[in-house]
Amino acid sequence: MRFKAVDVNVDRVLSRLGHLAGIGATSAGGVTRHTFSPEHLRATQDVAVWMTEAGLEVSFDQYGNLLANRAGSDPAAGLVLSGSHLDSVPNGGNYDGVLGVLAPLEALTLFQENNLATRRPLGLVSFIEEEGARFHGLLGSTLAVGQLSANEIADIRDADGIRYLDALASCKFALPSRPMDWAGGLHAFLELHIEQGKRLEAAGIPTGVVTSIAGPTFLQVRFTGQADHAGATEWGDRRDSLLAAAQVIVALRDMAMHEFEGRAHVTVGALNVKPNVTNVIAGETIFNIDFRAADADTRAGVLQRIEDIFAESATSQGVAYDTRELHYAPPVETTAHLRNALVQGATAAGVDCMPLVSWAAHDAMNMAQVTDSGMLFVPCRDGRSHTPEEFVAPEDIASGIAALANALLELAEQA
Amino acid sequence: MRFKAVDVNVDRVLSRLGHLAGIGATSAGGVTRHTFSPEHLRATQDVAVWMTEAGLEVSFDQYGNLLANRAGSDPAAGLVLSGSHLDSVPNGGNYDGVLGVLAPLEALTLFQENNLATRRPLGLVSFIEEEGARFHGLLGSTLAVGQLSANEIADIRDADGIRYLDALASCKFALPSRPMDWAGGLHAFLELHIEQGKRLEAAGIPTGVVTSIAGPTFLQVRFTGQADHAGATEWGDRRDSLLAAAQVIVALRDMAMHEFEGRAHVTVGALNVKPNVTNVIAGETIFNIDFRAADADTRAGVLQRIEDIFAESATSQGVAYDTRELHYAPPVETTAHLRNALVQGATAAGVDCMPLVSWAAHDAMNMAQVTDSGMLFVPCRDGRSHTPEEFVAPEDIASGIAALANALLELAEQA
Repeated sequence: MRFKAVDVNVDRVLSRLGHLAGIGATSAGGVTRHTFSPEHLRATQDVAVWMTEAGLEVSFDQYGNLLANRAGSDPAAGLVLSGSHLDSVPNGGNYDGVLGVLAPLEALTLFQENNLATRRPLGLVSFIEEEGARFHGLLGSTLAVGQLSANEIADIRDADGIRYLDALASCKFALPSRPMDWAGGLHAFLELHIEQGKRLEAAGIPTGVVTSIAGPTFLQVRFTGQADHAGATEWGDRRDSLLAAAQVIVALRDMAMHEFEGRAHVTVGALNVKPNVTNVIAGETIFNIDFRAADADTRAGVLQRIEDIFAESATSQGVAYDTRELHYAPPVETTAHLRNALVQGATAAGVDCMPLVSWAAHDAMNMAQVTDSGMLFVPCRDGRSHTPEEFVAPEDIASGIAALANALLELAEQA
Repeated sequence: MRFKAVDVNVDRVLSRLGHLAGIGATSAGGVTRHTFSPEHLRATQDVAVWMTEAGLEVSFDQYGNLLANRAGSDPAAGLVLSGSHLDSVPNGGNYDGVLGVLAPLEALTLFQENNLATRRPLGLVSFIEEEGARFHGLLGSTLAVGQLSANEIADIRDADGIRYLDALASCKFALPSRPMDWAGGLHAFLELHIEQGKRLEAAGIPTGVVTSIAGPTFLQVRFTGQADHAGATEWGDRRDSLLAAAQVIVALRDMAMHEFEGRAHVTVGALNVKPNVTNVIAGETIFNIDFRAADADTRAGVLQRIEDIFAESATSQGVAYDTRELHYAPPVETTAHLRNALVQGATAAGVDCMPLVSWAAHDAMNMAQVTDSGMLFVPCRDGRSHTPEEFVAPEDIASGIAALANALLELAEQA
């Protein structure tokens, strides 16, 4: 059996979206649910109740991630897992993460309602702390795949100095805890998510099959010039760190747009000047570069060009510079047979789909370290996310869930 | 009689420079003397003693400016005034302002020692608060020329909220107060100052006759774009306010350097970004432009080009912008007959001189509103000022004082 969009109980999904939108609702119409806050715990608990009502076996893992399981016919077969997250950025939207939890819940509910047995077990997950608004980004999946040592975990604190482990220990989960060993029994991971871009909307296509997740690299750059009199210092005597930084910002955009068309995004969103006084030439300018490359070759190429641009600007303005890497996640290609399953799932659902790069990071990046990993995007209006204006049309929700359900079924039937 | 550099008692001047360098001395080798601080008052008092010892009549005006007078033979003739300031920026140098007070004091002392009578009276002034480190820049001369209303004066406060008038009232001047009406009896104002640039040093010429004082204009510009996801937002959908600002910063420099060669300086030294987060496109960027034009036509031309550059960048990045003027002083041309007197004074002293634009503002700008005004520059090492490294060679001090003394004599003899 395969599902069409019309088979999805979209009213049930919309009702659940509406219910979760009320937990942590802000006056601006958005939602604030930081990890382990009362709002986050309540949303998680309510989703756990829906999972239980759907006949799934529900638990928490040792890190606070919510899990649900639907048994397969072959007890030795690896799990086909799907999910996303329920935490949000401050005053965020009502679909980012949430839809990726409710969509596979709806899919598994449809399987239950249609008495569809599968060879492999099917699983759901809601990861904690995907957004990084409290501790750091993708924390739940980072912990789940075993990337952090016990010492590193013990050092994780929020801005108030509260340790992640203490915050976790203070949560009263009304469900059993079942430590997970992802590396043991996983067959595949699929995440449905809003696109956070306009490509699907512009193309009028309701589903996007992610080809790769662009790995974010954050670089901090410091240009050191000399703070001199802004009026009296002749052009030839200036060592203007802000001018050098401005040249870099312009050159980075031109380079990424034109030399790596569609394969790299480069942004400078954070910049600080010293002494930051109107009539004094900027002695020091520190700025951060957020750069994302769709694949490893593009990343290497962009990094080389970034170094060229730094050196050229520093030389032309007589300033020194140094850099340090603040964060780096390699670009992740999704697995070909999962992309195929998603395309076939969409086709079977009678839904158009197109290939897309994911420019944002997702838990699916981490999951790719321990299993085959794939993603399905649905359009969000005007490409807006992390804002109360975030919106997904009900018909696109139905299309996405039908395509996901079909892909999960196919994967769960694989040998 | 005219003076040569060798006639100047440079040891006396160096001794006085050294004495004043010890008042407010910083561990870095510089000096901090904010207006009406104990250090500023002590320096002013010690200079007043030297003035009295030179046989001059010493007083304070109603604003706290120090004045000294040497009578001329014609009681109805207007005053030939010279001077500068004794206040400093934090950790400033030992010559900026100070040399412009000690130089005419040395000149008048030479006149006394040589029993040189002049037709016009000669005056000295040390203005308060030229640097603006406590209240605001050029305050002493702004008050002296009557630019501010009583209400505006009453509103002047320092960063601690202390009113200028209260700070003034708490000073215990050990000298008579003699309210000045500059507009009444002035014939000319001459200010000697360090160049705060490298042109004299590069040319190997010890004196510069200032042709005009570039008027500083401070503009605040706000670019308003949209804070979006730095990874996910496609190039065509970005409204990046920092990218627009960076384009402007680069374009402003190119414009000023190449289209108004040697007649305009444009600097962006202060810039702030919101939300200033690595992975969020800058929604708002506010920056200040310091721009100086050597004359009114250049200023008008640069302002027009600045508007073009704003509009072009805003359009290309899809951002809005608005501007406001934070400060504006028109460029001031020095008076031709004072330039002539300075050139002749240098020639008579056997000292080379060259014409120069002053890129920094000086009290001579304000004095130009009430009398003929001129300036003489002396070289400072490496062009450095507002720093402990500020230095003027003794031979250049002697050359500058001889040229100034001769110019003052000529002006004091004019009909």
